[in-house]
Amino acid sequence: MNETIDLLMQHRSIRQFKTEPLTENQIQTIVEAGQAASTSSYYQAYSIIGITDPTLKQQLREVSGQPYVEENGHLFVFCADVNRLAQSQDEETQKQMKTNLESTEFFMMATIDATLAAQNCAVATESLGLGMCYLGSLRNDVNRVNELLQLPDYVVPLFGMAVGVPEEDPERKPRFDWQTIYHENRYEATTSDDITTFDQKTEDYYSSRSENVRTDKWSEQIRRKLTNPMRQDVAPFIQSKQLNKH
Amino acid sequence: MNETIDLLMQHRSIRQFKTEPLTENQIQTIVEAGQAASTSSYYQAYSIIGITDPTLKQQLREVSGQPYVEENGHLFVFCADVNRLAQSQDEETQKQMKTNLESTEFFMMATIDATLAAQNCAVATESLGLGMCYLGSLRNDVNRVNELLQLPDYVVPLFGMAVGVPEEDPERKPRFDWQTIYHENRYEATTSDDITTFDQKTEDYYSSRSENVRTDKWSEQIRRKLTNPMRQDVAPFIQSKQLNKH
Repeated sequence: MNETIDLLMQHRSIRQFKTEPLTENQIQTIVEAGQAASTSSYYQAYSIIGITDPTLKQQLREVSGQPYVEENGHLFVFCADVNRLAQSQDEETQKQMKTNLESTEFFMMATIDATLAAQNCAVATESLGLGMCYLGSLRNDVNRVNELLQLPDYVVPLFGMAVGVPEEDPERKPRFDWQTIYHENRYEATTSDDITTFDQKTEDYYSSRSENVRTDKWSEQIRRKLTNPMRQDVAPFIQSKQLNKH
Repeated sequence: MNETIDLLMQHRSIRQFKTEPLTENQIQTIVEAGQAASTSSYYQAYSIIGITDPTLKQQLREVSGQPYVEENGHLFVFCADVNRLAQSQDEETQKQMKTNLESTEFFMMATIDATLAAQNCAVATESLGLGMCYLGSLRNDVNRVNELLQLPDYVVPLFGMAVGVPEEDPERKPRFDWQTIYHENRYEATTSDDITTFDQKTEDYYSSRSENVRTDKWSEQIRRKLTNPMRQDVAPFIQSKQLNKH
């Protein structure tokens, strides 16, 4: 198709990196590519924290339980941030903005802004020949991450991104057929046939991949993961940061 | 740098399109590029609805108030969707999954999944020489969008994306200096100097751009927009769809 679409289609998460750190120039390029993404109403309601302190990296690895949070070329943490919007105004105006800043609408908007930027960072990273992996696992203990990064009210960590020179070459993971995800004009529920087809596809993938071969399928994973309540401290944490309140 | 990073850096939202519709092949390519993005724990917790029905497009334009919601080459609506996760299981298992599915954590996760896919779609679109614009404006009346697209529980519309052959050539809009957005090891609040510098940058941009020249600056926009409560129906709507409940 073209070089960019080929790059997007070749994405695989990389979870083993060489220790070679990113250069300052690479970090700047990746962040600026992130910033070039669209942003809701020009708010730019996010912050990105790069982790270089080895102790801090180790502490974040403990939160996630994943070695590649520590062992990588660079670690980014993406935060939803409406604090900058507040800080741009005097105290009286800040009071008048409170209803918006603390709403679910603004929490969604900041989450969307941070994620648009993050995906541009991911694409830029891969275009530089580097690999990356998102780290939702930082939400295993959001209160701890909040404390470690010294986040004020109106700022919450959403996910991390480990980046670096790949030390593995995993296969691409299959996706649902595009017509399961994409519908025309109105919502169409996924059918049991769609699930069966995708279960077969994932079963083939897990049984034939070059590393960590196992017997598994998508719907089984979903059952295993979702039948145990997860991360129930996320909602009260976010409200404690004065976000998603009404 | 490279072709992909150049493309990312050249992004401008396009709000005037030729009427030329996208081909089925272009739509499939854009959706599949979206699907290739990372997805939290392999959930793929989103759906994309393409709008081709002229009446529906007109109705969605009424929600947004923006002519380019109707006049474009194609209109996508991105939805957070945990319904597919529920539908992949029997009734008994669905009951056991309820705590997760209805949590803020899962609502965030699905919002992030949809947005990662959307930004890949945006990049793919632009790589094909097309233009695009996100449409947060669909949240001006989420209940109406929900009704028009016949969304079940566990599915909410997040934003639209208008795509097509550009009929305008706007300038790139400036962004905060990368070091205002990016900090090392811990959060650093944006200073009043950062705001003043960016206000100057945006003032120069608004006064010198080729269309819609005006006197304005970033912090003034923020004040005007945020001092009036916006979209207060979004939070109760999302809870009525059984999401973001605890």
